[in-house]
Amino acid sequence: MGKFITIGERIHCISPAIRAAMESKDPEPILKRAKEQLDAGAVYLDVNIGPAEKTGEDLMKWAVTLLQEHFDNVPLCLDTANKKAIAAGISVYNRAKGKPIVNSADAGDRISYLALAAENDAICISLCSKSGVPADNDERMAYCQEMLEYGTERGMEPEDLWFDPLCLVIKGMQDKQAEMLEFVRQLSDMGFNSVCGLSNVSNGMPKTVRPIMDSVMLAMAMQCGLTSAIVNPCDLRIMETVKSADIILNKTLYADSYLEL
Amino acid sequence: MGKFITIGERIHCISPAIRAAMESKDPEPILKRAKEQLDAGAVYLDVNIGPAEKTGEDLMKWAVTLLQEHFDNVPLCLDTANKKAIAAGISVYNRAKGKPIVNSADAGDRISYLALAAENDAICISLCSKSGVPADNDERMAYCQEMLEYGTERGMEPEDLWFDPLCLVIKGMQDKQAEMLEFVRQLSDMGFNSVCGLSNVSNGMPKTVRPIMDSVMLAMAMQCGLTSAIVNPCDLRIMETVKSADIILNKTLYADSYLEL
Repeated sequence: MGKFITIGERIHCISPAIRAAMESKDPEPILKRAKEQLDAGAVYLDVNIGPAEKTGEDLMKWAVTLLQEHFDNVPLCLDTANKKAIAAGISVYNRAKGKPIVNSADAGDRISYLALAAENDAICISLCSKSGVPADNDERMAYCQEMLEYGTERGMEPEDLWFDPLCLVIKGMQDKQAEMLEFVRQLSDMGFNSVCGLSNVSNGMPKTVRPIMDSVMLAMAMQCGLTSAIVNPCDLRIMETVKSADIILNKTLYADSYLEL
Repeated sequence: MGKFITIGERIHCISPAIRAAMESKDPEPILKRAKEQLDAGAVYLDVNIGPAEKTGEDLMKWAVTLLQEHFDNVPLCLDTANKKAIAAGISVYNRAKGKPIVNSADAGDRISYLALAAENDAICISLCSKSGVPADNDERMAYCQEMLEYGTERGMEPEDLWFDPLCLVIKGMQDKQAEMLEFVRQLSDMGFNSVCGLSNVSNGMPKTVRPIMDSVMLAMAMQCGLTSAIVNPCDLRIMETVKSADIILNKTLYADSYLEL
């Protein structure tokens, strides 16, 4: 396995500035957030345009072209419930720096996002859930198998399914965290790629606590073999953790200046 | 398994202030460092008096009594190559807050420190090495078995051998870190307690980098089941890591104020 892959989460229509920029097709706020994240070391950028039922196809094409033209074909993670918008985004996507990521499929209503990924030779974030939170790792593994079968039958390579164990909020599901980490280890032992929406774990915690909890969880998940995560790369502690864990796991060579690289 | 056990490393004769205080039996510098570490959340305090060949017995008794009288029988880790000094320290040690820890045995010349621990119903830090650095985990495990046999034959409970996988310096042995972590996991799977001298891993790194690297390594080792470590508890990032990992592993109940507790 190579270096850990960070997917920057900050181009998201939940942000009022980004939402407004998407509505008016104003490049500046989007380019600014992209630059900040790339400067901080993000590998992929997530582009979340929301449900975007009417304008999604046009909007995703615009965003993909905008970002890839300005940032040397930066690889992107196309994040919307509108499948046609994802397909449209991929139609203008340049793969020079990496395949597009479809965000996301699950083993339930969203399983057909894997078909979309298969048709477009894309990576697909594959949530190990069907309807709601999986009860335990047996359930996670069953969903993982269902998605693997569905995807590979349609021509996907197993390594292009990035399985998401589903990070659960600690406030409320504290006793489920160790099991989730164990699942990451199972995925890793089987040679699968994995991904998670890291900040879910610290949802509802004080603002000062969140980067601390997220960083510790990330280090622990990387020890279990997690291969990528959707994170805020502008959170210095997160990126310090990624870089340090990559060194401990011998994925990148140590240099005294490694935190600046 | 209970909460992670931190052993504060800062009462160490390598510090000029502590060395002078030990030589002149001046309580203040020692009490000051003890208080700082306990305020920061250390559970045990290590008391390293150096080889102390001549004055060790008297000095260790003095230090044990001093610290336990001032800090409500704080549990201590008695750290010296002078076995008689450790025995003398234990002779005045109050166990109300925990057994004394003998620091340390190995599978070679220092194996008899386990006999000392057995005779005194003490915990013993048991380095998985014989002469120098173990080549691999098979070697570590062989030493672990030798020490376990030696200690239990003399009446020790297996849980009182705290196995130290031997943290290796990243600068020079970067490719050995993942294996060391895997060994911690093997120890944990077998139900053993473990301990490590954490700061070895970042030896020689820039001062600003060390707490970052140490914290990430600690989170990863705790994920593998490490049960204790010798650390600088006054390093805020280390203690934040311990507290956060204990929550993720469900060893302590989450509260928004957990970092202040």
